[in-house]
Order: sequence, then structure tokens, then C-alpha cells
Amino acid sequence: MSASPELRLATRRNGHRDGELMLVSPDARHWIAAGSDVPTLQTLLDDWDRLAPALERRCHTLHGHGWAGAQDFDAAQCMAPLPRAYQWADASVYRNHARLMYQWRKEPIPPGYETAPLVYQGGSDVLLGPRDPIVATDEAHQIDLEAEIGVITTDVPMGCTAQQARSCIALVVLLNDVSLRGLIPGELAKGFGFYQSKPASSFAPIAVTPAALGSHWTGAMLDLPVTVQVNGHRLGEPHANTEVIFDFGQIIAHLARTRGLCAGSIIGAGTISNASAAAGSACITEARVRQILDGVPEEQLCPYLRDGDTVRMEVCDAQGRTVFGAIDQPVRIDAPG
Amino acid sequence: MSASPELRLATRRNGHRDGELMLVSPDARHWIAAGSDVPTLQTLLDDWDRLAPALERRCHTLHGHGWAGAQDFDAAQCMAPLPRAYQWADASVYRNHARLMYQWRKEPIPPGYETAPLVYQGGSDVLLGPRDPIVATDEAHQIDLEAEIGVITTDVPMGCTAQQARSCIALVVLLNDVSLRGLIPGELAKGFGFYQSKPASSFAPIAVTPAALGSHWTGAMLDLPVTVQVNGHRLGEPHANTEVIFDFGQIIAHLARTRGLCAGSIIGAGTISNASAAAGSACITEARVRQILDGVPEEQLCPYLRDGDTVRMEVCDAQGRTVFGAIDQPVRIDAPG
Repeated sequence: MSASPELRLATRRNGHRDGELMLVSPDARHWIAAGSDVPTLQTLLDDWDRLAPALERRCHTLHGHGWAGAQDFDAAQCMAPLPRAYQWADASVYRNHARLMYQWRKEPIPPGYETAPLVYQGGSDVLLGPRDPIVATDEAHQIDLEAEIGVITTDVPMGCTAQQARSCIALVVLLNDVSLRGLIPGELAKGFGFYQSKPASSFAPIAVTPAALGSHWTGAMLDLPVTVQVNGHRLGEPHANTEVIFDFGQIIAHLARTRGLCAGSIIGAGTISNASAAAGSACITEARVRQILDGVPEEQLCPYLRDGDTVRMEVCDAQGRTVFGAIDQPVRIDAPG
Repeated sequence: MSASPELRLATRRNGHRDGELMLVSPDARHWIAAGSDVPTLQTLLDDWDRLAPALERRCHTLHGHGWAGAQDFDAAQCMAPLPRAYQWADASVYRNHARLMYQWRKEPIPPGYETAPLVYQGGSDVLLGPRDPIVATDEAHQIDLEAEIGVITTDVPMGCTAQQARSCIALVVLLNDVSLRGLIPGELAKGFGFYQSKPASSFAPIAVTPAALGSHWTGAMLDLPVTVQVNGHRLGEPHANTEVIFDFGQIIAHLARTRGLCAGSIIGAGTISNASAAAGSACITEARVRQILDGVPEEQLCPYLRDGDTVRMEVCDAQGRTVFGAIDQPVRIDAPG
């Protein structure tokens, strides 16, 4: 792959399953359609090396004219950058997240956790947009959020090195990997990994190239904190490049050891987590474990998500500008029957 | 969904990632292009209720004229029916497969195995055609085949019943869920399920609707045996509707408990297995476990797949006609570097 072009992309809800690809301005205030040659993000990813440089040139021209004629960007119009994807695989590379989560599960950290990335194959057929509700059937499932950084790849050859894998990173995204904590112990006890316990994930509206991140993309990892709120209250703002065991190049190379990955694969690094309690948490379970370790009684623990709650996640750069736009979504309980 | 139309579909390799949708004659000898309105199988699945009946009418007309003007069908031209899919989830519903596999792993059968379907989320971004090689990097990974029946769904609503789920079954397929046995124990010990141990699966060329199966589709399951050969030698022909704990309606309803499934989701029932030793096996590991139980010494056990081996899987109906066409694929070892 050639050098990363500078692009900010989103997908507009237009009644089609894959939406319409949008070019977004650096200040996230304007957009224009990528056009009929590149109707969707998957179309672009399928032919990235040919199409992305042309889109970058268009954005440069637009920028020179102050995005004259562009429309106002509104995250409420957006689907996930890829509303359905051919792959979602998630790693767990934040040492502190494993430390707290396995305390919660009263189990040892898995063998080899620091030797090779711990990964699972997630579901990617339905991916939610930044304002879509998290729909669950029962609060007793213990609905949790997980703020994560992910990347979207071009084609990744089987057996590639971590260095080669880094050049397959087309885009960087912010996502909420929703988890139903109450279903995890029973599901993992069966030995085949997550399924019901991992419903659809939600995505911030704007996917950005590594080049668009500039110095905030360091060592194949986002070098910024992520702000997480529930009902407008701070849950935490852990830094995405602190106490990370593996970078995205190493994660992707691990995934590609026995199979190639198709363009449009979304790869996550797992719930962001810092050892410092001052950073707070990017998931509710971690916050609860910290409280338990502090002696907080059960009835005062941070509650899991309930009907009508809202979840907000955002990353801002050193100038305070939004990088991916915000996830800002309600929780809705739809009891069956 | 309306009543299942009678259709036999395949995907021709045409240089595009999703290939070209083919209508196949009942005797699997002829095909014509589905046409520019329905260029790919995913296009059809996205709008199944509207498009499938029209294709069925075309096939009836073609049949009335003996498929005059159609071309000769050749599986070597075919990709997987869906060369890339938004979801592949696999269950394990053959009681005897679990019995033998957990003997091999020296572990108890997972809790609740007969209460709810045991499932895992598989990778669907790269799916192999019927003549594509199984490519692995190392025979020491213990390359195994697994003959399975799968279905491809239309949109499945969250929380649907098994009965509702049955009406979401658009197509039935035959597949080889390739497994790297040598990597499974280490991967499952980490608790997050399969990833490296499940490389790309391979598919027989023809996907058929339940209506096209007629009386061979019984209780939301294929009611026929599956023939499995390695290097032209019989491995087994277990019956796909024998000693099954859950049917496809029950599997899909389990998967849809906490999330909807997108049209084009491929759902497997797991390695076909019959308790009767006379039926043989649909994977090498099962054959080895049976041999071990019979006292066969280690060095005489059925070997795992090696470079240059061939795998063949086929289902024939009561009249001896091929139902899905055959998987007939070589194994190739591409050592890295």
C-alpha cells in the first residue's frame, strides 16, 4: 500500500443497507458525498489504493475553498462507517483491563496473555450508528459499554509480519463494544467464546486515516485519551496509548497467521484501561471492580445500563477538536412478547 | 416471508469479489446468469421476498424449454455461493460429535449442551469455493476437515421464536469447516473461543432453497447422508438428520436472542456425526478417536491432511443426483518465508 492518504469519512443513512459514503471536513462541520464512483465505504476499501488518493485530492481542493457548497455535518444522519462488515475481531491488549476483569471473574488471566494477543471473533452483520439505541431485552443481562479504538483494514495477506500489517490499516474508528455481562460467565463456561453476550457494537460517525491523525497516531495506536460518560456523568477518560501490550500491527499479524483478512475487516484493541484510578474507566464493570476493591458496598456500586440511560464517548485532539465525532446513544429495553 | 421458492443458485468467478449470481438447473448441468438486476447472491438476499419469486418464475420457464441456451455448469468456475459474508456462526448439534470430540480433548461435554445450542462466531470475510485449495502453513497444525450442513438467512428479527426463525431460512448449503486441531487446545484454554484454529471454510457450489429439497428438508434439517472422502478413500457418510439435538430454527432463535441477524448470515449445524460406527466420520479427529477406542496404535491412526491431499464432500438425493455439487479441493502447504 502507498502512504496513508489524509481522509475523514462517514456513512449517511439513505435508506440503503450500506448508506452513502461522505467526505468530512477536518473540523467535522461539513460534508459532501464521495460520489457515484465510490457509493459506499466498502466500495472504497475494496479498491483503496486506486480510489483513496483521488478522494484525498478532492478533499484538498475542497479545503482550499473552505468547503464551499458542502452541507452541515450532523452525526444524527450517520450510520456506522461500515453498517455491516465482513469481519469484526477484537483483541484485549490493555493490561489493566485484563487485571480488573479477571478479578471480577475470579479467574486467572489467561495463559500467554502477554505473549500473543488475546482475541475473539465478533459479530459484524449489524453495526450501530452513533445515535442508534442500544436495544436489550432485559436489564438483568447487565448491559455494559466498552470504549475501544479499532482499525479498518485493506486486504491483509496470510502470514504477514506486524510491520506489513501496519501498512494494511486504512482507517481508525471509535466504538462501543456493548457487552451483556450477565450472560458472559455462562457462555464462556461452554468454551466456545462470546455470542449472545456480545450484541451489536456502536460506532462514532467519522472514520479517519492514520495520516489524518498526524502525531496522534503513534506506534500503530491512537495517542489520545477517550472520554466516556453515562447520563452526562464522567465514567473516565483513559489514554488509548498507555500500558498497551500489543499495537494494531501485532494484533493484525496474529489474526492473519492462518488466514488472510478481507478488505473491510474491523479490528479492535479491546476496552481502554489505565492502571491509574484517576483516569477512571471505559466500562462499567471496571468501575465496579475498582469500587469493590475500595470497599464500596454492593448496593452503592455503579449500576449497569438501564432503560433510558445515555452513553457518550468522544476523542478530542490537542486543540480540543473532535476526532471521530461522538457516540451519543440511548439505551432501550424491549422486553419480548 | 412468503413460501420458499424453488431455486438452485451458484456464484461464478468473474474477477469481482462477489462474483456473478447463476441460476442452476435441477440436474446441476446447466446455468444462466441471474442478470443485471440481481448481480450477486447478497443482492438477492437483501431483497429476497421481492426478487426470489421472479427468479423462480424464470427457472420454471427455462425448465419448460429444457434450459435451451443455457451453458454447461462447471463447479471449477464457482466461488463459494457467498464469497464473503457478513456472518458465519456455527453450532454443534450432533450429539455423537460432542461425545467423541470431548473424549479427544479429555474434557467433559460443556454444561447445558442439550439445553441450548452450543455456538461460536466464525470468520466470514474469506470463504472458499468448491475447488479452491485449503492453504495452511504447517502440517503440524493438524489440518482437519468437517462436513457440515448450513443455511443462509434473510433478515432475522431479534427475539424471534424457532418457528419464526425457520421462515428466515433462504438457502441450504454444504460446507467444509476446516479446523487446525493442533491450535485448538491452546486457543480454547484462553477462554475466548476459536480464531487461528478456524481458517477459511469451503463451500459446495450450489445453494438450494428448502423447496428445492422437497421431502429431503424435514424438520428444518437436511434429511440425507453426506459422503466424505480423503484422497478418494471413504471417510464416512453420516446422515445429517440423525441424532440431532436442535434444528436450524432452534439454532437461529438462539443466535437471535440478544441481536438481530442480517440477511446473508450463514449458520452451520456443526460436524455431522452418527453414533453408528458403520456410518464412518465427517472429520478426521472423530475417525481417530474411534480408532483409539478400538485399540489402534498411534502410528496407525488416520493421518491429518497433508500437502497434496484431496478432500471430497457431496450429498446425493434418493435418485442419486447431486444436491449441492461436490466440494473437491486439494490441500496445499505454503510454509512462510
